[in-house]
Amino acid sequence: MPTKLDMAKFAKFCKDMGFIFQSSEIYGGINGFWDYGPLGVELKRNIKEAWWQDMVRNPPPGPDGQEIRMVGLDCSIIMNPNVWVASGHVGGFSDPMVDCLKCKKRFRADKVHFACAVVDNTPHAISVEADNATDAEPLLKEKIAKLDKKKHPVGRALKSAPQLEYHSATALPASWPRPCPAEDCDGTLTEPRAFNLMFESHAGPIASDENKVYLRPETAQGIFANYKNVLDSSRLKLPFGIAQVGKAFRNEINPRNFTFRSREFEQMEIEFFCHPNESRKWYEYWRDLRRQWYSRLGLKSENLVPREQGQEELAHYSVGTTDIEYMFPFSDEPQELEGVAHRGDFDLSAHSSRSGKDLKYFDEEGWNALLQVRLEAFKDDKAKREEEKKKLEKEEKAQFQFVPHVIEPSAGADRFTLAVLCEAYTEDTAPDAKGNPETRIVMKFHPRLAPIKAAIFPLVNKDGMDEEAKKLYRELKPFFNVVYDQSGAIGRRYRRQDEAGTPFCITVDGDTMKDGTVTIRDRDTLKQERIPKSEVRKVLEKALSPV
Amino acid sequence: MPTKLDMAKFAKFCKDMGFIFQSSEIYGGINGFWDYGPLGVELKRNIKEAWWQDMVRNPPPGPDGQEIRMVGLDCSIIMNPNVWVASGHVGGFSDPMVDCLKCKKRFRADKVHFACAVVDNTPHAISVEADNATDAEPLLKEKIAKLDKKKHPVGRALKSAPQLEYHSATALPASWPRPCPAEDCDGTLTEPRAFNLMFESHAGPIASDENKVYLRPETAQGIFANYKNVLDSSRLKLPFGIAQVGKAFRNEINPRNFTFRSREFEQMEIEFFCHPNESRKWYEYWRDLRRQWYSRLGLKSENLVPREQGQEELAHYSVGTTDIEYMFPFSDEPQELEGVAHRGDFDLSAHSSRSGKDLKYFDEEGWNALLQVRLEAFKDDKAKREEEKKKLEKEEKAQFQFVPHVIEPSAGADRFTLAVLCEAYTEDTAPDAKGNPETRIVMKFHPRLAPIKAAIFPLVNKDGMDEEAKKLYRELKPFFNVVYDQSGAIGRRYRRQDEAGTPFCITVDGDTMKDGTVTIRDRDTLKQERIPKSEVRKVLEKALSPV
Repeated sequence: MPTKLDMAKFAKFCKDMGFIFQSSEIYGGINGFWDYGPLGVELKRNIKEAWWQDMVRNPPPGPDGQEIRMVGLDCSIIMNPNVWVASGHVGGFSDPMVDCLKCKKRFRADKVHFACAVVDNTPHAISVEADNATDAEPLLKEKIAKLDKKKHPVGRALKSAPQLEYHSATALPASWPRPCPAEDCDGTLTEPRAFNLMFESHAGPIASDENKVYLRPETAQGIFANYKNVLDSSRLKLPFGIAQVGKAFRNEINPRNFTFRSREFEQMEIEFFCHPNESRKWYEYWRDLRRQWYSRLGLKSENLVPREQGQEELAHYSVGTTDIEYMFPFSDEPQELEGVAHRGDFDLSAHSSRSGKDLKYFDEEGWNALLQVRLEAFKDDKAKREEEKKKLEKEEKAQFQFVPHVIEPSAGADRFTLAVLCEAYTEDTAPDAKGNPETRIVMKFHPRLAPIKAAIFPLVNKDGMDEEAKKLYRELKPFFNVVYDQSGAIGRRYRRQDEAGTPFCITVDGDTMKDGTVTIRDRDTLKQERIPKSEVRKVLEKALSPV
Repeated sequence: MPTKLDMAKFAKFCKDMGFIFQSSEIYGGINGFWDYGPLGVELKRNIKEAWWQDMVRNPPPGPDGQEIRMVGLDCSIIMNPNVWVASGHVGGFSDPMVDCLKCKKRFRADKVHFACAVVDNTPHAISVEADNATDAEPLLKEKIAKLDKKKHPVGRALKSAPQLEYHSATALPASWPRPCPAEDCDGTLTEPRAFNLMFESHAGPIASDENKVYLRPETAQGIFANYKNVLDSSRLKLPFGIAQVGKAFRNEINPRNFTFRSREFEQMEIEFFCHPNESRKWYEYWRDLRRQWYSRLGLKSENLVPREQGQEELAHYSVGTTDIEYMFPFSDEPQELEGVAHRGDFDLSAHSSRSGKDLKYFDEEGWNALLQVRLEAFKDDKAKREEEKKKLEKEEKAQFQFVPHVIEPSAGADRFTLAVLCEAYTEDTAPDAKGNPETRIVMKFHPRLAPIKAAIFPLVNKDGMDEEAKKLYRELKPFFNVVYDQSGAIGRRYRRQDEAGTPFCITVDGDTMKDGTVTIRDRDTLKQERIPKSEVRKVLEKALSPV
């Protein structure tokens, strides 16, 4: 029930359970960076593995029932900086920022808001920090009210002004004053300046502009840069997709909302290349498939909101873009989990132009088919056939040589992990040792995503039950992430596994020693069944099957 | 047969097959960065998965037959910079470098070698670049011989000198001249200066010293920084291990030998925490296990060289360090694949000291056992028991509170991938279409590591064979990375799979349509067997089983 979560309490739970730790916590942490603990790393591994299995290894058939061709790729995080010039990230991937010339603080220009008025031909202004204009207005009025009318000339002017104007720092007229919004600072802000969101570094021993490099802000461009190498080495024909999972970095001004907006994150991206005429159908295929995938892995439909951009928002080449959004508990608005975008030939054309390399696809089959049909009439006249062929090459071949269009389903592995954690977190009641109801925390993960698949307990540590349970544990261990636990009352052991989200608890008891059956308890229904211990592996395999 | 490989030819093969591409190749590449293509990404995924399965999920029993407790972790690449101060990387992780004041070239100080002599009370010197003193001497002599005796005062002096001295730039007396070794440059080198191998960047909008950050040069420190969080969240008791797979970065002056020494690479590291008294036995466990693991996955014993450091090379706290080296084909000397080091309490103590956090382990069980024994005599006298308990707390409790010792098996995922590629590459003969022997390239990967597990072919594309083969392909696809191929002669299809290292080729032929059997061809022995098609999945499962 994600909408009811207190995020601070939830982050504490995630830490205590070993899902997510603040990076470098013993040194006070570092803003915008997170680590995955023992349970978290298994959860995130399962998420990435499910994506690879369902999207790369075995995606469902295409719109016309055809086989979907997918291959993987794994590129370096640091690439030749020309990649980021071509992609537009060096020029455009930036937020406008303002600096205070006195206190040296830096602010996002769209988050600093001014109240301004001209009194006696002189412009006066004060400023506050706020997310948007609506939030800013009461804050500005409050700040003005607090200004001492006598001692503060700006306060005096603003209080006496018949009407105030409101602006953010992105839209303030150049002639207005730009006071710093910081408490107790009477400094002045600079004009807005672009701040690039890419982390910069230098490769090689000399830190000069010539060997400046960037940490990739997305994995997608590595796919475009390798498009030709993949095509040349893999005998693929259109349509086909290239998939990649990997870290990316954005130097966010204001990382926030737990792991949702961090400076280091992991993406799961696909670039699906197709003929321009077929891009709409492939866009729809991926848009629908990606939304279904989240549902299939446990996100409730009512929390999943696809937001399709209107025609007027789209770039001219694009047939559509959909943000698949999720109702995270830290916001009243749904937030982006994944973007599925039709990018046209924008990226390949940009890289072709910058690198000078031909990135066109040649539809050899189509061209040969055309030749066969058109040359049929001349099959007995070699000279005429050659002549016709030359004509066709001049007039018709070009249509078989084109830059493919691209559908890009771009998912955030950390965001989906966070959504899964929020969605799974449940407080319900379960019977305690005496059968009375008590509150329990249970993480209702989909079995495929659950960090631990099963826990094996002896009911008591005697009469051979512990040995028997250990034996079962050792039999299952090579195939599943299972744990063995013999400490404390059985009820407490159940609770521990509920909090870890383990879908099955298997108990070896007195009957096991007689008839070879064990009890298997379902995490969500709390129902226990007796099954032969030789069946346990099959039950787990079935629950975990991707098909 | 790794010793016979021509590395340039081999790199070309790796590119053509889609194993490894130069990063950003369309922009001329970038020195020290590599990408994994469609086959390479599957190979490397299998390697990382095999490591996780065999080391984290299901490691073999310990020296006394005990269960090995392992958990995973996944830390951010950028951490609080104090981590790197504590670890010693900020202060010490550097190479001494010299710069030419004229041509601005930079050299590693230990790679610039001088021939020097004092003639008429004046020191003269020339220099060359070379890996070591032995290589340098003939180069220096050659360079002197070429100097024009009349026009070149240094040449004149050196030629007339009764005896030459040789030095590298790390040991040149301060009063000697330091000529640049570059051809056609008569500049002078600086004194050696430390150049840190960590990539630097800045987190947040201001690029000041205060928010300087580093890309981690190893994954290990993330484990130490999280040691307490893992301990607190997971109820683990000593001994136990924490494992991590992830990218690390070193700004190598001279990346070389294909992917062997690159600037961005992936590590698979374990920190195994144990009682100081038990560190020798755990060191031996991991040293032997890690070597066996490489053999089990296909590296021949004669190419695997464990090099144990002598007692005199070890730090005072260390019981041992072994480099597991491999005979890569680019060198006559074996090169490091993995280091297994006993690190004592060095890292945890350093982090404890820098962070001010207590990172001691409390052996509660041991302490309680001692209390029980020692308080037994006073069980009827509460006052005396309390008195004795206080005494024990003062005198004996400390021995149960200690900083664990650490065994660190640190493997390079890219280096092992390269070793696997080199080891697998084989040229042998196989019959062509007419049964005559022809040379084939075959990648003899261990089935667990092979990118593609099986290829399914129809013998001919008619009589329902293609449909039948496609059906089998679709049945296997959810469980294995398999391919379907119906194009070209069957012999050519075999060759393509041999080059990709696919262990099994399964052919649907006329008999399949009659009796439901298929042929399954072994990549290495070339033997074909007929088996019922319903058995194929079992055969693959058996070949791929980790146990």
